[in-house]
Amino acid sequence: MITSTIASHSALQIIQGAKKEGFKTRLYVSPKRKPFYASLPLLDELRVTEDMSKILYDEGIIIPHGSFVAYLGIENIERSKAKFFGNKRFLKWETKFELVNKALKKANIPQVESFDLSEVKDNELYFVRIEGPKGGSEHFIAYGRDLEEKLKNVRTPYKIERFIDGIFIYVHFFYSPIKERLELMGVDERLVIADANKRRPFKALPYTIVGNKLIVLRESLIPEIYDYGLAFVEAMHNLEKPGIIGPFALHFAYDGEFHCIGFASRIDGGSNVNHWYSSLYNGEEIMMGLRIAREIRLALEEERLDEVIT
Amino acid sequence: MITSTIASHSALQIIQGAKKEGFKTRLYVSPKRKPFYASLPLLDELRVTEDMSKILYDEGIIIPHGSFVAYLGIENIERSKAKFFGNKRFLKWETKFELVNKALKKANIPQVESFDLSEVKDNELYFVRIEGPKGGSEHFIAYGRDLEEKLKNVRTPYKIERFIDGIFIYVHFFYSPIKERLELMGVDERLVIADANKRRPFKALPYTIVGNKLIVLRESLIPEIYDYGLAFVEAMHNLEKPGIIGPFALHFAYDGEFHCIGFASRIDGGSNVNHWYSSLYNGEEIMMGLRIAREIRLALEEERLDEVIT
Amino acid sequence: MITSTIASHSALQIIQGAKKEGFKTRLYVSPKRKPFYASLPLLDELRVTEDMSKILYDEGIIIPHGSFVAYLGIENIERSKAKFFGNKRFLKWETKFELVNKALKKANIPQVESFDLSEVKDNELYFVRIEGPKGGSEHFIAYGRDLEEKLKNVRTPYKIERFIDGIFIYVHFFYSPIKERLELMGVDERLVIADANKRRPFKALPYTIVGNKLIVLRESLIPEIYDYGLAFVEAMHNLEKPGIIGPFALHFAYDGEFHCIGFASRIDGGSNVNHWYSSLYNGEEIMMGLRIAREIRLALEEERLDEVIT
Repeated sequence: MITSTIASHSALQIIQGAKKEGFKTRLYVSPKRKPFYASLPLLDELRVTEDMSKILYDEGIIIPHGSFVAYLGIENIERSKAKFFGNKRFLKWETKFELVNKALKKANIPQVESFDLSEVKDNELYFVRIEGPKGGSEHFIAYGRDLEEKLKNVRTPYKIERFIDGIFIYVHFFYSPIKERLELMGVDERLVIADANKRRPFKALPYTIVGNKLIVLRESLIPEIYDYGLAFVEAMHNLEKPGIIGPFALHFAYDGEFHCIGFASRIDGGSNVNHWYSSLYNGEEIMMGLRIAREIRLALEEERLDEVIT
Repeated sequence: MITSTIASHSALQIIQGAKKEGFKTRLYVSPKRKPFYASLPLLDELRVTEDMSKILYDEGIIIPHGSFVAYLGIENIERSKAKFFGNKRFLKWETKFELVNKALKKANIPQVESFDLSEVKDNELYFVRIEGPKGGSEHFIAYGRDLEEKLKNVRTPYKIERFIDGIFIYVHFFYSPIKERLELMGVDERLVIADANKRRPFKALPYTIVGNKLIVLRESLIPEIYDYGLAFVEAMHNLEKPGIIGPFALHFAYDGEFHCIGFASRIDGGSNVNHWYSSLYNGEEIMMGLRIAREIRLALEEERLDEVIT
Repeated sequence: MITSTIASHSALQIIQGAKKEGFKTRLYVSPKRKPFYASLPLLDELRVTEDMSKILYDEGIIIPHGSFVAYLGIENIERSKAKFFGNKRFLKWETKFELVNKALKKANIPQVESFDLSEVKDNELYFVRIEGPKGGSEHFIAYGRDLEEKLKNVRTPYKIERFIDGIFIYVHFFYSPIKERLELMGVDERLVIADANKRRPFKALPYTIVGNKLIVLRESLIPEIYDYGLAFVEAMHNLEKPGIIGPFALHFAYDGEFHCIGFASRIDGGSNVNHWYSSLYNGEEIMMGLRIAREIRLALEEERLDEVIT
């Protein structure tokens, strides 16, 4: 059995996990990224191509990640006859504010407040969130008095959120249909260019993601977060059958209370931090890529593959 | 043999460690925290109750952590006939400024300077530390000119410390009576709400702990820190017989020199970062919870259990 | 076979790695650092001495690190007849701006812009970098208008760099002559005293390194970085025969683009973060110290030791 993915986003942990679970690995890679990926002793096959849509005709099990929608388009993915790990109709839910709101409301997860431009106050700080996961590079912060001017050039749908004076945490979950349980897999904090402010007089800087940093939560915060995870799984089970299969993430701002700011409806980039929470369920620290491969292997062993692919 | 603890603070690593060392595990958990703890395949017994004091009558080995004093009270713990891992009379030493001062002075560990209100300077920044470990939510920073006003509403004992322009590090140790050695187990940095300032124009924000982040020290700083650990073990051996058994932490501000800002007289929450320093002594990376369980197992094997419980 | 090093900088991971690969370990340690190093069960021999230059006559394989040049002097190292792991003539390349520039230009790696004092603008922020790796304690930031005044007291060679509004990342590589490949081993972010600004109104603070924090890069950034690593290996192969053997690091500021700010021409202190990238090549997470020891063992097994020592 072979697993296939595209050489970006979370491909490293996906191919490493697949290899560890005994699968062959295939990677679609653009020519300019070849030297790095070709240096890895983990790959059985490297398909060097500018045309990532070839993966839609791959005969292996395709493991999607955060670059799939950008590279291939939602419609092409949903129409594809290829075997995708997970519920491929869940992928679109993170891409539109309307769907994000619908899912979080259904799950009763408190969201960060958002405002119309007419409601903002001059001296309050706001966070402008741009629709769709774009690595954060277009999000920005601004005082209310400057918002109108700054929004003039914004062409994509946006949301004006209250700026939360708190810490932003990204919680990684895996829902296993085979084991019928929700596993807390880890938590990370984004490292963004704006964090450069920790060493300089303040300046509004881009929220472009540079990397991820492992954080371990104060234990008393975990039960609430886990409850949100359970509620989200239940909500999506009702909203998009067969519901969530495998990885997702909930994103929160925390200022003493949790305010949900979004979610990832697939493996979240920040699950790359190799968190020990995963060992609570799996006996050893494993990354999400390995957890996915293990689910596929278990499904194959129990002849239940159709329960984890769509 | 069974080990028991309360479902909060450091319970996750405690039960995981106990399980790995072959103990049965029992957890006292409040009903609202049940879904998360019940999801873990690590527990042999979950006692769902609002009344944590039941653990004082548990017949297993009780592993205390940072929530025990708050839930049970020092006096009840000291009076309890249950078998506590560690020196239960050491637990109180972190709870009062007077005891903290006494311990650090005895160990000759340099403390951060503190001041009376009459001594503060208008344009200097100060850190007001509230007595007792409360997750930091009541500590605050302020300029001298604002201190009198801000302290009006503070009802608990406090200390006005010089604000150190530096990094705050939390060093985790384990003193093993069985192996007769002090082990450096790891170092973390707290993630607090006030850290939100790395992305916004400055605002005084709460010091509430959100989580912990692993840091690896510049190696040249370690010998001095280890010497402080040795001195602290020796001091407590004289101050509170039989002295320290198992985990403790020393907390420092570092601005080119170390200034001790306190300690944890039990497993410190930040020991959850799974630091490789632990492998220097134990052959593999282990968390404090596992180190505790291993000490108990070794003590049982050598029929020296009475040396590690009180 | 015995490996020897000096008890500072990266000695912990070096001796741990050597021990794991079956070597005997010897450490030269100053008397005041003895208690910590003597507490470790990893050492076969501890030579307590104030005179580190004794290592130049050691008959084992010497594993140099970032303190060697400071303790021993470049000339003494290059003249020594002892067996050094790696290319000992590469060690000097990080110590002079002239050599750093030469190496980075040869490798075509984009450097951060630097300026003459006459070119600076009053209201722009600059980073003044002091020559030689000194733990960062002498570097500083300043606005152009204050530079002349602040540079008056600087006696060592310096460089006035554009202050990059971005994140500083340190990328660790290992070039293996035995496996003939370049391995990406990990990435860290420095924790410096100036980071204290994340919790206080801004103040220019020292860049003294306190520790290191593991970061995992956004995957799309890795191929470019790896290409720089390959180019650097090739450049040094031409500039300083036999080229790089073993560990080195490239240091970047990232503000949407990479700007190289320097490199380490030996094991970099920040390789102590135990990064999982190392597992991509080595099947398990290993630190640089262990990777070095493994290269020596492989070389011995293949009777190619002369290819990894100079």
